[in-house]
Amino acid sequence: MSEKPLLLTPGPLSTSKNVKHSMLNDWGSRDPAFTVLTKNVRNNLLKISKAPESYTCVPFQGSGTYGIEAAFSTFTSPSSKVLVLTNGAYGKRACTILALLRRPYIELEFKENEAVDPIIVENFISKNSDLSHVFMVHCETTTGILNPLISISNLVKSANLVFIVDAMSSFGGIPIDFSFTNIDVLISSSNKCLEGVPGIFFVLAQKSLIKKSIGNSQSLSLDISSQWSEFETSGQWRFTPPTHVVAALNEALNELDKEGGVAGRFARYQDNCNILVNGMRKLGFRTLLHDNIQAPIIVTFYDDFKPNYSFKNFYSDLQKHGFTIYPGKLTNNMTFRVGCIGNIQRKDMHMFVSTVEKITK
Amino acid sequence: MSEKPLLLTPGPLSTSKNVKHSMLNDWGSRDPAFTVLTKNVRNNLLKISKAPESYTCVPFQGSGTYGIEAAFSTFTSPSSKVLVLTNGAYGKRACTILALLRRPYIELEFKENEAVDPIIVENFISKNSDLSHVFMVHCETTTGILNPLISISNLVKSANLVFIVDAMSSFGGIPIDFSFTNIDVLISSSNKCLEGVPGIFFVLAQKSLIKKSIGNSQSLSLDISSQWSEFETSGQWRFTPPTHVVAALNEALNELDKEGGVAGRFARYQDNCNILVNGMRKLGFRTLLHDNIQAPIIVTFYDDFKPNYSFKNFYSDLQKHGFTIYPGKLTNNMTFRVGCIGNIQRKDMHMFVSTVEKITK
Repeated sequence: MSEKPLLLTPGPLSTSKNVKHSMLNDWGSRDPAFTVLTKNVRNNLLKISKAPESYTCVPFQGSGTYGIEAAFSTFTSPSSKVLVLTNGAYGKRACTILALLRRPYIELEFKENEAVDPIIVENFISKNSDLSHVFMVHCETTTGILNPLISISNLVKSANLVFIVDAMSSFGGIPIDFSFTNIDVLISSSNKCLEGVPGIFFVLAQKSLIKKSIGNSQSLSLDISSQWSEFETSGQWRFTPPTHVVAALNEALNELDKEGGVAGRFARYQDNCNILVNGMRKLGFRTLLHDNIQAPIIVTFYDDFKPNYSFKNFYSDLQKHGFTIYPGKLTNNMTFRVGCIGNIQRKDMHMFVSTVEKITK
Repeated sequence: MSEKPLLLTPGPLSTSKNVKHSMLNDWGSRDPAFTVLTKNVRNNLLKISKAPESYTCVPFQGSGTYGIEAAFSTFTSPSSKVLVLTNGAYGKRACTILALLRRPYIELEFKENEAVDPIIVENFISKNSDLSHVFMVHCETTTGILNPLISISNLVKSANLVFIVDAMSSFGGIPIDFSFTNIDVLISSSNKCLEGVPGIFFVLAQKSLIKKSIGNSQSLSLDISSQWSEFETSGQWRFTPPTHVVAALNEALNELDKEGGVAGRFARYQDNCNILVNGMRKLGFRTLLHDNIQAPIIVTFYDDFKPNYSFKNFYSDLQKHGFTIYPGKLTNNMTFRVGCIGNIQRKDMHMFVSTVEKITK
């Protein structure tokens, strides 16, 4: 079977041969062996977050967006008021979900090329005493910006609010340490920095919060309390899990461990990102973000192409040379994005830059 | 990598080598090649249902239960009233979903070992003029019973109601012909008779109904109208799809075609079921259902074991011999279930029966 191009995208991304080969078995979803597999995955996800005993991990069928909806559906109620910090499409999507669920919220918007500002957030929280929750995207995949997780988590804790974090494209690739970061709920997915295949999201949350939230969700499918309760009693998924995706995530977590955990992976991604950014700058491309707020996950470049050249040409020329990149997602500005995550090594990044040089000169 | 036991379960089930090997590539979810793959899958699902032009196919991330919730969320409103015909756990689960969504419904319950009775349904509909929808499970996996789809569909059509069918464990294995069966909405999954891997459900529905239902869903993730709209405009999934699962389903649909379509597969399943039932009866086991209402999908047997033997022993003895079966799901009676579906051939069924003979004598 022919190899597809290398995916320099925010995920689904290029996974290792072992991760893919772990899908070559069929599992009975109610079989004890699969229950053990699920338990391993849950435990390993808690382990890499350094979460204390008071936290649990609840995996689910579905994409990351399902996870954000599950969190709001379960952990908020019609009497909540959620402060949503936005600086990109995924923050905005959280607002859309809350509006549909009819859970009160207020948006505090930042520019797409600026990180969430703790000073502004502190001021806002102090002036809005009716807030119950704060939601923030850790790494906004819209641009690749890294928001200040620890600062905001401390502010939220001081105000005694519940902190919900979308760590979709950061968890596993950027260190997040629950032992000193005040996160109540974190949502992430199998197919980003964990380098599994898509089909699962998971929630890391305070057990006490999950227990308190029984009865909030109007969705059976996306009820975190019910899903957790079934894992705790039978060890099984309530509804048919994507068994092959779970097996792939289990293998992906083994590989993360072999790479030296999140710290080891972060080092590789940072290296990938440096090679990419330095190389592209030498070719004349400009990054959207300042280096101090750029996460080593995905990089947004202005499409400074020569005349009569377009993203469409660029995309298909890169495809022919074995690379898949990602379109921009900004409201203004013409841009494209290149991911640094997945089973991508420094040689791949060097090859990418030299390919860009070849096809754009 | 060692082969797991053969899965004689209602799914996830044993899939072919080719289906599993089709997961050995990574796909960019926004790449044109993946858009083509998605289009193929949607078209092939419509083709095997013989659905007229007025129908469309909307695939989703998630398990079958997510699909039932998506259908109710999208196609009903607070002013609807759904008649739910139940004779097992999956009919009951539909009631649970409707109650959580706060969509009015009324349950018409039949015994677990009896098919839904069209005479009783006709009478009930005629006496309840406030109904808007009727929901029925085609093959109730709780027992393996086959409900009378054509009769009920005609009744629903005559009463001018919307007919929603859970065909989770029948679609692809039991012929359902939309060209003469009055189904407005059908929900099924990748990992049952289609013999793909789990992670996707799909909805076949009238386009006009989807258009009329815009704005009903309080869920962003499970909104069939929005998901359809995005497929129609960009050809893409709204949110990250389980790319490997989609590739597996595409291959599984190719294999279904090679087997002679649904008719060919039905013949194999019926053969599997006959070998199983006849063989087990010779060993002294009794089936829960009469033969005339038994679907060739999964068979429920009373656990007529010798003294000091239990389902637990039986399950683990069968595991050692390479077979995974399924526990019973009845409210009364001790039973176990054996599936006839998946990549299972008549030799496997003969081997299963002789293994049961060996370990229970």
